[in-house]
Amino acid sequence: MSEARGESSDTTRDIMCATHRAVCEHGYADLTMQAIADESSVSKSALHYHYDSKHDLLAAFLDHLYEQWEADLAAAEAESDDPEARLRALFDATLGVDPDADEDLQTAILEIKAQAPYDDAYRERLRRVDERFHDAVRDTIADGVDAGVFRDVDPAVEATFLTSAISGAHTRKAALDLDVESVADSLDAYVDDRLRRGERE
Amino acid sequence: MSEARGESSDTTRDIMCATHRAVCEHGYADLTMQAIADESSVSKSALHYHYDSKHDLLAAFLDHLYEQWEADLAAAEAESDDPEARLRALFDATLGVDPDADEDLQTAILEIKAQAPYDDAYRERLRRVDERFHDAVRDTIADGVDAGVFRDVDPAVEATFLTSAISGAHTRKAALDLDVESVADSLDAYVDDRLRRGERE
Repeated sequence: MSEARGESSDTTRDIMCATHRAVCEHGYADLTMQAIADESSVSKSALHYHYDSKHDLLAAFLDHLYEQWEADLAAAEAESDDPEARLRALFDATLGVDPDADEDLQTAILEIKAQAPYDDAYRERLRRVDERFHDAVRDTIADGVDAGVFRDVDPAVEATFLTSAISGAHTRKAALDLDVESVADSLDAYVDDRLRRGERE
Repeated sequence: MSEARGESSDTTRDIMCATHRAVCEHGYADLTMQAIADESSVSKSALHYHYDSKHDLLAAFLDHLYEQWEADLAAAEAESDDPEARLRALFDATLGVDPDADEDLQTAILEIKAQAPYDDAYRERLRRVDERFHDAVRDTIADGVDAGVFRDVDPAVEATFLTSAISGAHTRKAALDLDVESVADSLDAYVDDRLRRGERE
């Protein structure tokens, strides 16, 4: 989906990596097509041939990020048949990465997120990420309820809460530079106390 | 703290209400001093006399919002001596408002939040909101643990998780227009299952 018009996947990959570097260096608001071209092997005019605007290029970049992240999420889902292990793997795939490594990228994504209320293309792409994670959590919890390892909770309600907690952890880290590492521990405790069927039941 | 230089509190209040209306109408990025003046009883030049820039005026506006919100939070804290009731009142003060009423304001605040990594004045003010809520939740949970009504959890870790969940609910609503009303129910269930000491203990 992040394929540029009439271009080989090598060039597309080069442009996406260049966009990644440029957005981390300049942030969203100050990013220019020239800055992206400077990081890539193509000229600014070639970049404009492939993408009409910075907006279109960033929409393609969000698709590119989605594909990378989705592959990690699918791998986490495939890790185990056990719903509890799968749920913890889903959390790790979203929160368990080095929180400082992608700080500049998270900052730029927060800027794009703040544009989403005004921008259908951004909003649609960010919703796809949110929905993919939410639904994976919901389905995993539903499997756990069916298998009798989780209590009889409403999987969709739990998934909304957990997705909100992880979204909030990312936002608090990016916007306020707050330490949110303890959120991973809290998610573990949540599975233990709220979801897992206790011995008393 | 939102007092303009050498000005009566009536004028300050007028300017803050005008800023509220203008930011809801125009959003953050497109907001101008002229648009704020148009909503108020003062001229654009008078506005510039009181505040050096749109940035200073918006910092004062964040102080103004903080004072209003803090009064609601303090009222919630004063509602009951019972830690469980107090905790639920804190959640209501943050999430229990009509989620659609302040939609435009939440959108603008998300834009300001996305500027916070680059802007000390915004970041400091947004952190104050976050910290005030986090600490209120932490202290209330600590009271509950001391009183034996809550389990022996780490109050700071729980407060970080709950603050993240509420922050994420606001962001998902503002950025993605997602329904997050169920988060209030999840917070109730969280208190029941994770915090409250069960009969078996």
